Amino acid sequence: MDMVSIIRKKRDKGKLTKEEIYFFINGVTEGTIPDYQTSALLMAIVLNGMDEEETYYLTEAMMKSGDILDLSEVEGFKCDKHSTGGVGDKITMIIAPLAASLGIKVPMFSGPGLGHTGGTTDKLDSIPGFKTLLTEEEFIESLKKVGIANSIQSKNITPADKKLYALRDVTATVESIPLITASIMSKKLACGADGLILDVKFGKGAFMKTKEDAENLAKSLLKMAPVRNIKAVALIDDMNEPLGYNIGNALEIIETFEVLKGKKVDDLLEVSVEIVKRMLELKGDGENAEERIYKAIEDGSALKKYAEWIEFSGGTPEVINDYSLFPSCENKTDIKAEKSGYVSEINSYSIGMSAVYLKAGRLKKEDTIDYGAGVVLNKKVGDCVEKGETILTLHYNDTRIPLNEIIFLAKSAFSISSEKVEKTKRIAKVVK
Amino acid sequence: MDMVSIIRKKRDKGKLTKEEIYFFINGVTEGTIPDYQTSALLMAIVLNGMDEEETYYLTEAMMKSGDILDLSEVEGFKCDKHSTGGVGDKITMIIAPLAASLGIKVPMFSGPGLGHTGGTTDKLDSIPGFKTLLTEEEFIESLKKVGIANSIQSKNITPADKKLYALRDVTATVESIPLITASIMSKKLACGADGLILDVKFGKGAFMKTKEDAENLAKSLLKMAPVRNIKAVALIDDMNEPLGYNIGNALEIIETFEVLKGKKVDDLLEVSVEIVKRMLELKGDGENAEERIYKAIEDGSALKKYAEWIEFSGGTPEVINDYSLFPSCENKTDIKAEKSGYVSEINSYSIGMSAVYLKAGRLKKEDTIDYGAGVVLNKKVGDCVEKGETILTLHYNDTRIPLNEIIFLAKSAFSISSEKVEKTKRIAKVVK
Repeated sequence: MDMVSIIRKKRDKGKLTKEEIYFFINGVTEGTIPDYQTSALLMAIVLNGMDEEETYYLTEAMMKSGDILDLSEVEGFKCDKHSTGGVGDKITMIIAPLAASLGIKVPMFSGPGLGHTGGTTDKLDSIPGFKTLLTEEEFIESLKKVGIANSIQSKNITPADKKLYALRDVTATVESIPLITASIMSKKLACGADGLILDVKFGKGAFMKTKEDAENLAKSLLKMAPVRNIKAVALIDDMNEPLGYNIGNALEIIETFEVLKGKKVDDLLEVSVEIVKRMLELKGDGENAEERIYKAIEDGSALKKYAEWIEFSGGTPEVINDYSLFPSCENKTDIKAEKSGYVSEINSYSIGMSAVYLKAGRLKKEDTIDYGAGVVLNKKVGDCVEKGETILTLHYNDTRIPLNEIIFLAKSAFSISSEKVEKTKRIAKVVK
Repeated sequence: MDMVSIIRKKRDKGKLTKEEIYFFINGVTEGTIPDYQTSALLMAIVLNGMDEEETYYLTEAMMKSGDILDLSEVEGFKCDKHSTGGVGDKITMIIAPLAASLGIKVPMFSGPGLGHTGGTTDKLDSIPGFKTLLTEEEFIESLKKVGIANSIQSKNITPADKKLYALRDVTATVESIPLITASIMSKKLACGADGLILDVKFGKGAFMKTKEDAENLAKSLLKMAPVRNIKAVALIDDMNEPLGYNIGNALEIIETFEVLKGKKVDDLLEVSVEIVKRMLELKGDGENAEERIYKAIEDGSALKKYAEWIEFSGGTPEVINDYSLFPSCENKTDIKAEKSGYVSEINSYSIGMSAVYLKAGRLKKEDTIDYGAGVVLNKKVGDCVEKGETILTLHYNDTRIPLNEIIFLAKSAFSISSEKVEKTKRIAKVVK
């Protein structure tokens, strides 16, 4: 078996065998295949595709390229969630305490953000003292004691994916359903959960631009669940508008507290309740799920679980009731509506990039973050707005580009229509 | 402008601009574009193609990536010939003396062979003393004095092609008409001739398997002639059967002497006369071309030119009349026909590889060559053969694989039919 023949086969629309896929992935992992051969094969895969069986073996080979976590010593149903990334997506910090308060164990690995979508690690890092890098022992202990564990990945999980992803990023070979599937699922399957909720987003602020593309990706992801025999379900989720009102790290954490204190943020509740309901169903405990979820909010048990989690992670649980403990910003600039009407669009990508330029996110990996900075929306799609009314507020100490340009970008994200507009329904579909 | 965007554009079937193509080729030449990006773009080009305009700029940019020869100080019409490579292809050594004896200047650059097709440099190296590496001054002097100059390329011609070719070879990105076109034509155009005859071969022993593919390549090659405003014409040439009777370096040189001494080797004469005729036409001197060409053979003027060329190149012109001065082989093994009938096929690839295994050619670049070794055919397609009659003879001192296997391979190259078979017509078409 040799790499040139494998590249030639895929170039000529052939189907790669299990052995050929393992030869490729093992070679990438061990560094015996030069990058120029890998990128030629990646481009051939992007253009000629892979069928379900090839994608299955690619996922399996990538999963096996490094450590595979064993969470069997943690009792109970362990359910993970994966989001393909969105603007204002703080769902993890709502569903983890909610699900844990209802008896589900939530093991999660997350990372820092890059570009217009934020990263869960950055959001949690805004909580004073919160540790986002746990040892394996601490991770398991957190899962056992609190029911939630979140950490940056410290073990050698899917090294093949790390190498492939770095190469795909610089060779225009990211956009491929089989490659995205193997990348996401190899990592998730290596992390030892029993169940997985996939939150596949589509729209202007998402990687997948259309509902159909998101659904195709979701179906491809779900087909990989048998690689490690886990239970999985996928939500197809509209990301044309940011999730919730707050975008930026501390601002988003504050919004998750608000939701668990009972604030009715429609879209955050819609997505969070659906996810926790699906987790309970996967566990085989779906009866009266919705009712029990709302009760966990109303009776404060989810918020209590959140406090436990923060405390176990070395953070200051007092932040829940005293937001002044968070990093904050000296400057706040309100942006006003230029005409009256109904908000018909809030472009997620533009809002996400505005937050990045306010230093809430990174343009380059080495950029530092201002945890207090971000964008607070005052209106959502479907809301009525008067000319001169504040539509959003920029929070910042300093900016990456001139403030004028950020104001222009954020303002241009809003479209106002004279006709009445429906509120966004986030969940377009559930795929099993 | 950045490389990722260029790759993405071609991946998405876009048309690259002149600026983008120059950015790519200059980056390859200067080493500022990493190989993994180059190979991703090459694969995208293989799969999504390039139109005529893109191929034109690719050829031009590659031509300009290094030195461009200036032969303007040599008077007369300078006409080069390029063959896409075949088994037993000693046409260069017939047409160069013929054309030069008829007043055409023939500047040629050649290289050593690899695999089943031999290299002109190796063939000339079999002539005792013949120098195949000339300085630029010697090259021009040879062209002026003899009318023929042949050398390994010593100047920095098309360095971009050298880098791209090395990468294409190990990434399964060789098979692409735009890439082959730019590779061949950038080199030929950089060499300073006024005219060019392209000998594009098809069949079992050739790179292009079908006549249609060869014709498509020929048309693409000819479209690049305006890059440096040269005159060009292409022959589409059947390579299903080896050219002539002798395959192997000294054996082939001897056969070229024989043809110029008047031996009627049908296919060698057919191709050589056609090429020289086209050269004369390109020069604008096509009247009675065929008659004059045959006369140059009959009256010995072509052979005399050959002797001058050998002498000027440091070789021993006495070899023309004393073949014992060539390296020769101790062992000769005849292979006999197993049945009577008509030769219906002589597989060029198998005969070419048999010669390689007899050490007439190389499997790897660093292999040494036995200049005397090779295969001598006793029959050609269409010939009648009796059971037990010798169909070919292997000449060797030593072999790269066991002799039995070479005998098996060479024998299997011959097909014998009970029905009468037509002789191969080599030139299928002339494309202008």
